[in-house]
Amino acid sequence: MNTNTNIRAKLLISCLDQPGIVSAVSTFLHQYKANIVQSDQYSTDPSGGMFFMRIEFDLFKESYEFNVVREAFEDIASSFDMEWTMDLASRRKKMAIFVSKEDHCLLELLWKWRAGELAVDIPLVISNHLNLKDDVEAYGIPFFHIPVNKANKEEAEQEAISKLYEYDVDFIVLARYMQILSPDFVGTFPKRIINIHHSFLPAFIGANPYAKAFERGVKLIGATAHYVTNDLDEGPIIEQDILRVNHRYTTDQLKVAGRNVERIALSRAVSWHANDQIIVHGNKTVIF
Amino acid sequence: MNTNTNIRAKLLISCLDQPGIVSAVSTFLHQYKANIVQSDQYSTDPSGGMFFMRIEFDLFKESYEFNVVREAFEDIASSFDMEWTMDLASRRKKMAIFVSKEDHCLLELLWKWRAGELAVDIPLVISNHLNLKDDVEAYGIPFFHIPVNKANKEEAEQEAISKLYEYDVDFIVLARYMQILSPDFVGTFPKRIINIHHSFLPAFIGANPYAKAFERGVKLIGATAHYVTNDLDEGPIIEQDILRVNHRYTTDQLKVAGRNVERIALSRAVSWHANDQIIVHGNKTVIF
Amino acid sequence: MNTNTNIRAKLLISCLDQPGIVSAVSTFLHQYKANIVQSDQYSTDPSGGMFFMRIEFDLFKESYEFNVVREAFEDIASSFDMEWTMDLASRRKKMAIFVSKEDHCLLELLWKWRAGELAVDIPLVISNHLNLKDDVEAYGIPFFHIPVNKANKEEAEQEAISKLYEYDVDFIVLARYMQILSPDFVGTFPKRIINIHHSFLPAFIGANPYAKAFERGVKLIGATAHYVTNDLDEGPIIEQDILRVNHRYTTDQLKVAGRNVERIALSRAVSWHANDQIIVHGNKTVIF
Amino acid sequence: MNTNTNIRAKLLISCLDQPGIVSAVSTFLHQYKANIVQSDQYSTDPSGGMFFMRIEFDLFKESYEFNVVREAFEDIASSFDMEWTMDLASRRKKMAIFVSKEDHCLLELLWKWRAGELAVDIPLVISNHLNLKDDVEAYGIPFFHIPVNKANKEEAEQEAISKLYEYDVDFIVLARYMQILSPDFVGTFPKRIINIHHSFLPAFIGANPYAKAFERGVKLIGATAHYVTNDLDEGPIIEQDILRVNHRYTTDQLKVAGRNVERIALSRAVSWHANDQIIVHGNKTVIF
Repeated sequence: MNTNTNIRAKLLISCLDQPGIVSAVSTFLHQYKANIVQSDQYSTDPSGGMFFMRIEFDLFKESYEFNVVREAFEDIASSFDMEWTMDLASRRKKMAIFVSKEDHCLLELLWKWRAGELAVDIPLVISNHLNLKDDVEAYGIPFFHIPVNKANKEEAEQEAISKLYEYDVDFIVLARYMQILSPDFVGTFPKRIINIHHSFLPAFIGANPYAKAFERGVKLIGATAHYVTNDLDEGPIIEQDILRVNHRYTTDQLKVAGRNVERIALSRAVSWHANDQIIVHGNKTVIF
Repeated sequence: MNTNTNIRAKLLISCLDQPGIVSAVSTFLHQYKANIVQSDQYSTDPSGGMFFMRIEFDLFKESYEFNVVREAFEDIASSFDMEWTMDLASRRKKMAIFVSKEDHCLLELLWKWRAGELAVDIPLVISNHLNLKDDVEAYGIPFFHIPVNKANKEEAEQEAISKLYEYDVDFIVLARYMQILSPDFVGTFPKRIINIHHSFLPAFIGANPYAKAFERGVKLIGATAHYVTNDLDEGPIIEQDILRVNHRYTTDQLKVAGRNVERIALSRAVSWHANDQIIVHGNKTVIF
Repeated sequence: MNTNTNIRAKLLISCLDQPGIVSAVSTFLHQYKANIVQSDQYSTDPSGGMFFMRIEFDLFKESYEFNVVREAFEDIASSFDMEWTMDLASRRKKMAIFVSKEDHCLLELLWKWRAGELAVDIPLVISNHLNLKDDVEAYGIPFFHIPVNKANKEEAEQEAISKLYEYDVDFIVLARYMQILSPDFVGTFPKRIINIHHSFLPAFIGANPYAKAFERGVKLIGATAHYVTNDLDEGPIIEQDILRVNHRYTTDQLKVAGRNVERIALSRAVSWHANDQIIVHGNKTVIF
Repeated sequence: MNTNTNIRAKLLISCLDQPGIVSAVSTFLHQYKANIVQSDQYSTDPSGGMFFMRIEFDLFKESYEFNVVREAFEDIASSFDMEWTMDLASRRKKMAIFVSKEDHCLLELLWKWRAGELAVDIPLVISNHLNLKDDVEAYGIPFFHIPVNKANKEEAEQEAISKLYEYDVDFIVLARYMQILSPDFVGTFPKRIINIHHSFLPAFIGANPYAKAFERGVKLIGATAHYVTNDLDEGPIIEQDILRVNHRYTTDQLKVAGRNVERIALSRAVSWHANDQIIVHGNKTVIF
């Protein structure tokens, strides 16, 4: 058996928990000669809660077309009233990066992308400043400068949305983009905008978290990658990480140290989103 | 539906990977009206490697007896040539603790057991020293003193084995038991003896790892929980953890610091073993 | 030179920064034939901020009495307007533990004390419940049951204070003592009460932090050891630590996991306080 | 007092421990109107071991020239038989980077350097491959391609040494440079070559540590930054860090994960070396 003749696909499922789901899904896949390569499941409460599942499976090229399998799955899905996606592993999501003046999160993503660690395409980068244009273009990625101020905010967002549509973007990463997006913008990309907040949420919500952390004298600083909703810094948390600091750190030194933990937390979150490892449920995430 | 009328069970499976396993197992469970609460799967190589699976499921008291289900599963198991166990979650494994003079790993296990964090029974503690007798008996657990020296080693092991049989022990934890067990002893309890080695294996195999760590000037010290085989410190690793140290640490201070990481790594490993979360394959472990 | 004939002492200094402090202090110690074994210094701002220093030094028994040295240091101290303490390393602080029903922080401290890892005496444990009486007395430590309710709170605190005076207590550890102390009580032991808060402050201030953490869907939980002030959970932070969790954790499982990080953060903080490694400045701590 | 008129300097001292060193050094600095901004001290054994010290101090421009102070210090130094360096904080060390085909450690250093996080100058990068030429030159840094094979190894090293002299290099970082340097080369830059080894030394010395880690089934992988000596992977350890992995990681996935911990450990080590925070003593490092 040669894996090169196989087609890897990913199936994500959310529905009300009830008996027989795993059996129905796995029997369906077996009928289509699919081989389950990995499966993860989580039930919030076996007695009537939510059921979440992620399956990776291989199809044989000689057997069934992927589209045939996906269409056929609709019957199973509707019988259990599932929210679901089934996608080819080879289909790379199109990721737009929004950035302001700071380069660390942007460069981390670009470097990991070039190294093959992020299974995405990056059709464009949008910034309200010009200083990172050369860095982005060195990676062969189009860079668009869309300045934002109080007067032109709505217009600027519309211009950004046009670009995102033009490049057929799947999701957006705010890589230290220091603008608050309007409800209209957020509503256009629900559960598809990832932000990195430079604190261990829910501590230090809002502006200047490192100054607040300095003031409070904390011994650890953190960073939180989350989906953007209209409640500032209140969206579903994807990943958090921390770094040990001490009394010697000034606010500026906290910022410098924090860059490292921001980069790490954000790139993990992006990698999981790109790989369909996240299910959002209410204001929480299930990470498989 | 009342969860109190359900019976939770755990199924562990290892076999050669092949299409249809998940479907067969989940359909079997569905036929017996079982509800899959959690499932984890790992395939070493989708094209002909090994397949490992752990399923937790609930049976309804009104439907089928657990023993009936377990017997019936034999058909599935033999058709895929599985190694497998199916056990009631309510059946607590019987764990013996072997200890020498140091108390930290022993007390951690006893405390977690009393706090309900370790789902085991502890029918006895065996030691080659007397100093921890009161500590053990304060928890209402029988303590047996079996001194070991070069002359009586075989005899002492036989006495220990008799006790283990008498108390119907499922597995053994060496909580800093400073004796090397004979191949006979190890062979009597294959994959059922857990040791804590006080270094980050494979660094510092053998005696006095903290002295060696001091000599080498490492910046992190570690601990490794592993199954005991006849190759000293070479058995399948279950868990490892580390602690940051610096040039100020003497060998004695490394030992003191190391106690904390030994306790943590060992109690995690024991908890996973007790909960049937570990499958040993060759010289490695799969942790679900 | 035989270290057994030496007397180890610890000097802690806070004052306004100004040139010549290190020179004056070290020359003073040299005049008294003291040997500086370790010294740490921190200046908030070289141009007119605060100066903090901790020195460990050895006195020779044949040369000067410790009390003579301490008295003589008063001249240096007043010339720089220092806040300072100078203490024998051999003088163990007297630590009272306050506990409610949960045992994990209490037992961690008692175990570390018995193992020689905490250089304190523990003259008494006070609890508003009876369930841990046997555990405490097994360590040979007096246990006092002082029930607290709305009606008797003031009285109960007075009774506790009497006990603390009677046993000449230096500092108090609230090892998950679930009562809020009155300003009177706190004012009686300024910078001498250490609490463990079961969250990563300033996230989840107040009651039920694990329930709040579950609700928010955080990916890390934390614990914070801090000095108690009259602003609830707002006192100077001594130590924080965290543990990785995921969507599978219920509120109860967060609590269980949290016990481990509470134990670790609290025992580090207590060890530093016992060893005179902490200087409180405003609402922050300098840890040497 | 205006800090802009001050000159920051760093003093590193190693000598046999003896009474009066701190007093002599701090009194000397006070005489020259220097203000001690930070000081760290470590004694291996107060009764006749080694004494290590690092002091940062500010000189006033109006008072004494730095060179005058440094020359004058020679008297103190020789009276205690010190090994010492005194340097201006503003003098940036010249760092050469050696790299092979892999980019992650190189780019991390270049990015941190551009961000102002590494206080060094980077006069050149040397590689035995051409693939990273554009990346390096994008940062405005000269890139020299010096191919190495069995036949030309000595010659190639001589060419590299010539370049290092030409650019007046202070120290060398092997950023995943996959060649073993000859004793001649190492002897030319004692304690001035930093290597990153892609394992948690002393585990997995030598080639292919990730393949060995996979084989052994470890649960953590690590990286070690150390000074290069003629004993392969046996030089003084500067920094180590680890990352949690599990049974799902293939050797290639261990490599990918490992890149992140290699970058972190190496850049910390480089930063400490650049900032004169490391004293090498025997086969160990003191990190201040």
